[in-house]
Amino acid sequence: MTRLLESYAAGRWYAASAEGHPLLDAATGEEVARISSAGLDLGAMTHHARTVGGPAIRELTFHERALLLKELATHLTGLKDELYDLSLATGATRRDSMIDIDGGFGTVFSYSSKGRRELPNAHVVCDGDLEQLGRTGVFLGQHVYTSRPGVAVQINAFNFPVWGMLEKLAPAFIAGLPTIVKPASQTAYLTELVVRRIVESGILPEGSLQLLAGSAGDLLDHLGVQDSVAFTGSAHTAGILRQHPSVLHGGVQLQVEADSLNCSVLGPDVAPGDPEWDLFVKGVVTEMTAKAGQKCTAIRRVIVPSAVADEMTDAIAARLSTITVGNPDDESVRMGPLASLGQRDEVRKAVEALRSSADVVLGDPTATTGFAGDGERGAFMAPVLLRARPGAVEPHDVEAFGPVSTVMSYDSLDEAVTLAARGKGSLAGSVITHDPDVARTLVLGLAPWHGRILVLDRDDAPENTGHGSPLPMLVHGGPGRAGGGEELGGVRGVLHHMQRSAIQASPDMLTAITGRWTRGSRRTETPEHPFRHSLATLQVGDTIASEPRVISRADIDHFSEFTGDTFYAHTDPEAAAQNPLFGGIVAHGYLIVSMAAGLFVDPAPGPVLANFGVDHLRFLTPVKAGDSIRVTLTVKQITPRSSADYGEVRWDALVTNQDDEPVATYDVLTLVAKEA
Amino acid sequence: MTRLLESYAAGRWYAASAEGHPLLDAATGEEVARISSAGLDLGAMTHHARTVGGPAIRELTFHERALLLKELATHLTGLKDELYDLSLATGATRRDSMIDIDGGFGTVFSYSSKGRRELPNAHVVCDGDLEQLGRTGVFLGQHVYTSRPGVAVQINAFNFPVWGMLEKLAPAFIAGLPTIVKPASQTAYLTELVVRRIVESGILPEGSLQLLAGSAGDLLDHLGVQDSVAFTGSAHTAGILRQHPSVLHGGVQLQVEADSLNCSVLGPDVAPGDPEWDLFVKGVVTEMTAKAGQKCTAIRRVIVPSAVADEMTDAIAARLSTITVGNPDDESVRMGPLASLGQRDEVRKAVEALRSSADVVLGDPTATTGFAGDGERGAFMAPVLLRARPGAVEPHDVEAFGPVSTVMSYDSLDEAVTLAARGKGSLAGSVITHDPDVARTLVLGLAPWHGRILVLDRDDAPENTGHGSPLPMLVHGGPGRAGGGEELGGVRGVLHHMQRSAIQASPDMLTAITGRWTRGSRRTETPEHPFRHSLATLQVGDTIASEPRVISRADIDHFSEFTGDTFYAHTDPEAAAQNPLFGGIVAHGYLIVSMAAGLFVDPAPGPVLANFGVDHLRFLTPVKAGDSIRVTLTVKQITPRSSADYGEVRWDALVTNQDDEPVATYDVLTLVAKEA
Repeated sequence: MTRLLESYAAGRWYAASAEGHPLLDAATGEEVARISSAGLDLGAMTHHARTVGGPAIRELTFHERALLLKELATHLTGLKDELYDLSLATGATRRDSMIDIDGGFGTVFSYSSKGRRELPNAHVVCDGDLEQLGRTGVFLGQHVYTSRPGVAVQINAFNFPVWGMLEKLAPAFIAGLPTIVKPASQTAYLTELVVRRIVESGILPEGSLQLLAGSAGDLLDHLGVQDSVAFTGSAHTAGILRQHPSVLHGGVQLQVEADSLNCSVLGPDVAPGDPEWDLFVKGVVTEMTAKAGQKCTAIRRVIVPSAVADEMTDAIAARLSTITVGNPDDESVRMGPLASLGQRDEVRKAVEALRSSADVVLGDPTATTGFAGDGERGAFMAPVLLRARPGAVEPHDVEAFGPVSTVMSYDSLDEAVTLAARGKGSLAGSVITHDPDVARTLVLGLAPWHGRILVLDRDDAPENTGHGSPLPMLVHGGPGRAGGGEELGGVRGVLHHMQRSAIQASPDMLTAITGRWTRGSRRTETPEHPFRHSLATLQVGDTIASEPRVISRADIDHFSEFTGDTFYAHTDPEAAAQNPLFGGIVAHGYLIVSMAAGLFVDPAPGPVLANFGVDHLRFLTPVKAGDSIRVTLTVKQITPRSSADYGEVRWDALVTNQDDEPVATYDVLTLVAKEA
Repeated sequence: MTRLLESYAAGRWYAASAEGHPLLDAATGEEVARISSAGLDLGAMTHHARTVGGPAIRELTFHERALLLKELATHLTGLKDELYDLSLATGATRRDSMIDIDGGFGTVFSYSSKGRRELPNAHVVCDGDLEQLGRTGVFLGQHVYTSRPGVAVQINAFNFPVWGMLEKLAPAFIAGLPTIVKPASQTAYLTELVVRRIVESGILPEGSLQLLAGSAGDLLDHLGVQDSVAFTGSAHTAGILRQHPSVLHGGVQLQVEADSLNCSVLGPDVAPGDPEWDLFVKGVVTEMTAKAGQKCTAIRRVIVPSAVADEMTDAIAARLSTITVGNPDDESVRMGPLASLGQRDEVRKAVEALRSSADVVLGDPTATTGFAGDGERGAFMAPVLLRARPGAVEPHDVEAFGPVSTVMSYDSLDEAVTLAARGKGSLAGSVITHDPDVARTLVLGLAPWHGRILVLDRDDAPENTGHGSPLPMLVHGGPGRAGGGEELGGVRGVLHHMQRSAIQASPDMLTAITGRWTRGSRRTETPEHPFRHSLATLQVGDTIASEPRVISRADIDHFSEFTGDTFYAHTDPEAAAQNPLFGGIVAHGYLIVSMAAGLFVDPAPGPVLANFGVDHLRFLTPVKAGDSIRVTLTVKQITPRSSADYGEVRWDALVTNQDDEPVATYDVLTLVAKEA
């Protein structure tokens, strides 16, 4: 008897109290492992996540969490071979495994990098600008994202046992949430191996990640307002989850990513022989055959101009005919089996349904011979291409989750959009055209129905990642049939796990709550110039208020001459007087910020290494000859870099004139050493 | 018999085919109007919205939509008296009506302003930065928001018949969605009057707004993937909506804002006599009595330190005792009746339930005398203050939707957070403290449970808008029991109505799709300098590539001397050599942008009026003496202002050196005349 998969629950590995259900190799039909969650205490798992894992993660800053993810991904990369070996049993070819395994690691690396570059090294994320809620500025609004004291339950599909887990784990972890992952049983042995290696590594704090191998039982009964369920799988199961009392009435946040009838549209500008023609053919064939078409983003509907529909159908069929199907341990094989004989039965049924309004052009879904492997015990199926009959219904409604696509034709761009919309919401669409007008019309028509759209032509083809590949920096999900959810998308995927709240308070209170200096709150004039302070001693609110400096007409004239910026508002009194905004000669904006730097700088070598940028510079009041300016520079935000001996300091700069009117506001960005 | 309210459906006013259900004046019990939707064709309404209203709105840009809202709010403001008169029948005092009527208009004005200031004058919103998806930059990702070709159904509660409609209508309209509004029957006569005035005005395109007076019937059956339902009301009804097949399986997006057990927490630092003490007392009393406590944001739980619990309870009770309850047409009245006798029965029942674990300190919910008005026919109830017994359960679970609050006490900040969390998710919380540490601890503890938190002290009190007032620029909604939804929040509330999609494409295609120039896409060198073009002829992509200019050591020395920016990296060769980032004397960043302006400027008077700001300036490669720089300036985005004869032009600025390395990148913001 094969090994019983174990769950990792409340800090230990747990073997079920039952024999378990056998999991079979997709290609050979041999038993790989058994699975059961009988006797597992799911309440104890949620309790462990909330009381041990969550608090441990939330003690860390976003950057610290992100660094752990980098360490984890690096560690797992070293164990890749073992995962590739086991992945064969799922029916994955080497290329399929690369999508799953390397794709999963790449997602974790990407989140590590985004987490450090795009989030503060802190525990709270500010969202958007300050809102002044009254006339005088003593009452302000600031939106913040905070971490939920809950648990993220992640229920994954069988097709990506590694990527599926990691793409959900990484954003939740950065958001401060512990994960309970529940992989689909069919390929859970691969997820179990990854979790085992993660736990052994000790890289993530205990309680950050638990594994539920087997049935989810009453897990949802244990969830509440601060908890979430992220589900990838069938619309049917999603419908059941949506009706669970914890979701309907208990405030559990449910996020669904379901299979969808994704389409690829060929532009009317593309003719045989164009580079886009071949890109289209290759794209369709790749999406039909990668993971044997078992991808929720695969192309199910091939939408082409009527004029070239026959020719395109032939071209796709011809290329499909060259694909060798069989056991993925055979090197000649380009496409492996479906995940199980049960899955093959489902796909065969779906093809039968499609045939109500479409004709099979290529492939026999019932064939059990012609494969590099045993077609009775292995879940093999050759690619099936169909051609929709006019007014076809099923190709827009029936998903065959395998190597199956249906070609349909259109006569106008409007019709192409209408056909695409009949899918009722998809994860991914693609538009293959070299005509910008066609691209604009199709993309804007398709966008409300799609989470992601690839526009492919000869220009981006060299770096194209493909119709079906979700990328960590782009959102993944789609409206309607696709589940209505959204995950990934870089920091967007992190924020989905956090609560956004509007805080109304005085400037001082906002500074205390956000850890970021808020305009209007207390400034601290330090005995030394703040440029003398390293990150070790610099504090938010530290300030240097400069002496005033008079800007003379000679300064303006000289700056014009020196820089070459002889714009009439700085040089020609009569013309400047006609300018509706100035009404006379004004100083250059660049002169003001240059002089301001002269006023606030502390010249001697010290912890401040460089001014690497400026944000949100706005010129508010013109400066005329004879006006006097001064600048106040205040530490707004301090972001130590985890991987360097310096960090970023964002300074609030306020230039005022002799009447205390604001002349210019901006953020000055500097690099400052951690130690003096 | 009173008038039968009419629905505005598919372009005409419709009177139901039934006698209708009588609606009674809250204070006098007299019949105000009747209501029924019998015979109304709800399918025709959704069809009209999708085929007439939606396309008409989406022909307009965001700014054009926003301008119509301003015109609408201005028009309605002129009709205020009529609305105030009718509002009396709902039981609203003049102050209550102000919240509802003026608050509603203010929300529309705010959306008009935000829509023009924070959205492009276009049809598509870009979200976040470009993502480079490959090494060379030919394959990019950009998230966009597009308008849904659907209909927004808005189901409102009885307590804010004007604000409730307008706060949902305004963001949906800017998002490009037509609205079908279904007010709660009890106060629908006031909503009907507003809709009638809106329709008469002809300001909004036909089909933008329809009114369903009466039962919603099978309306949800007519909705699909691109449609949404925004519901404000009871958790019970929300639960029913969540189970509708169109929501469970049809992809209809449901957004819920339900009543919640909001809390106000007094900090342990506040003592009797402090300004915060009085602010707390006033806040609780205001929230209990405004709209007779019929606000989903009202304070239901008063959480105070044990040490002062008795004294605070007395203080609140004393102030409550001064409130005159009665018919709102009596000028001495400070609190009107509940909306109906039925509502009063509900509140009485809720108070009975609260008494299982709390004692009534003040008020008799069953009293029918002692009011300025008839306590048998008018739905009057005096404020009821309770004090929770230790371990009380009901005050965290039972919502009395009337002038009812329960005082409970805590011994530590942790306990205060735990008590607040027992509300299982709220719309609004408040923290009254003058101690920044207390504020930080309480706010960060409360934030995951709240959509909005007010921090109140002596500093922001002068401009405080109150615990219970949603503001258009701040999000409104909350997790868990509060419904899990989010609306308002300025542009956030608009984007919730749109679909976010990731677009992967070449730079040229992204420019075509977004209407905004994308770095890497084609530039057009125009025969004339682009500063010679007004908005009438300027095009996205128009470019000026400057001549090169050598930056000499003398330039650097001179700039140091002239501006006073003598930072050692610009002046001291030995010290500069030690700088880890520069390794020698470098030009000032401000010198580079100043010289760049000299290189790209076209000095003579023309359509370019001013450079009003700079965004995202980053210095990428140091410039050393002898290096040569040049700048390329390209039109990135053109935003005509609706209310001026000029608009904003955002230019992409790229400074490169003699090796074509990027020295600096930034956006230059200018004002340019619409006509030459």
